[in-house]
Amino acid sequence: MKRAIDKGLVEVHIHNLRDYTTNKQKSVDDYPFGGGAGMVMTVQPIDACITYLKSEREYDEIIYMSPDGETLNQKMANTMSMYENIIILCGHYKGVDQRVRDHFITKEISIGDYVLSGGELGALVVSDALIRLIPGVLSDETSALTDSFQDGLLSGPIYTRPADYKGWKVPEVLTSGNFAKIDQWREDKAYEHTKNRRPDLLEE
Amino acid sequence: MKRAIDKGLVEVHIHNLRDYTTNKQKSVDDYPFGGGAGMVMTVQPIDACITYLKSEREYDEIIYMSPDGETLNQKMANTMSMYENIIILCGHYKGVDQRVRDHFITKEISIGDYVLSGGELGALVVSDALIRLIPGVLSDETSALTDSFQDGLLSGPIYTRPADYKGWKVPEVLTSGNFAKIDQWREDKAYEHTKNRRPDLLEE
Repeated sequence: MKRAIDKGLVEVHIHNLRDYTTNKQKSVDDYPFGGGAGMVMTVQPIDACITYLKSEREYDEIIYMSPDGETLNQKMANTMSMYENIIILCGHYKGVDQRVRDHFITKEISIGDYVLSGGELGALVVSDALIRLIPGVLSDETSALTDSFQDGLLSGPIYTRPADYKGWKVPEVLTSGNFAKIDQWREDKAYEHTKNRRPDLLEE
Repeated sequence: MKRAIDKGLVEVHIHNLRDYTTNKQKSVDDYPFGGGAGMVMTVQPIDACITYLKSEREYDEIIYMSPDGETLNQKMANTMSMYENIIILCGHYKGVDQRVRDHFITKEISIGDYVLSGGELGALVVSDALIRLIPGVLSDETSALTDSFQDGLLSGPIYTRPADYKGWKVPEVLTSGNFAKIDQWREDKAYEHTKNRRPDLLEE
């Protein structure tokens, strides 16, 4: 992300919701209606922040990170990497007041079926997954194309020097210099690996 | 995580693999055998680091973060939150030499079906998911029990003050004071929400 920012390929701005509160205590959360554990983030500062940002430019999506959102996958990352502007709202505690989701959010994303302390790590994960796909961000552009999921398969095993480490040797084919054979071996291994670990990907 | 560390409930140590290299350039990566894009992390510094750490204490798991690992879910987080010691190895570039995975790693975890720049964000996600479940880390211990996934359901909507924000009102039941009715409403909403968004969770 830093490299992408330094190269001028992306801009990332952090907005502190406390700066948008109208109450003296700069409080951004309150107890849930109906009782129960945990705090809930209030509508007012989120409304003020999003309304201000929308007055400055148009956004492709206003995203809320939540474990009950649509589960992030590589296809979504590919699509979103072509967006011009997005807002990512991070909840904390038990999340945000439902009225924020009903009236401001256009897309809800989960990074997986587990609960985190807040949406911040999820926002970083989404940002990283998207930004690395922007042309020019990775030093070798072909690198992202051979990643897991881009061709529907998991990546197969990779090896680097030395060819023999404490008796653990790399597969002979990789040092054979026969690139047609190497390509075939890699394809076979990726398929085999996917079949063993994630047969669901092959069904798609 | 900071709160958990401050309270002495968990220790987190970061190890820089460059400190474990035996080459003059402190290089931790090299070109892949057989050609292709991207760099591969070498065996030697990882071997040296893990061997040193294992000489000091026993580990429940030595985890490698990788998109082709077992997909993290809340059940795994619950189990791992009871471990004493774990190592999380973060790959970068195209990942680590396969011999590392064959000889040192006991568990491979993915945080989801997407590719990130490295394993660091994944390691943070795993750490956060685990650490927040350790008793005493969350200020209100009952809070984690009502999270999404802990009862097989997504969380339903939550609301906080004001009851009326710009004409957007909270559901009347929540301000009724009838806690039996509120509990029933919440259960219904959580079920309905799960059925709409993640019917797969109900099948399990």
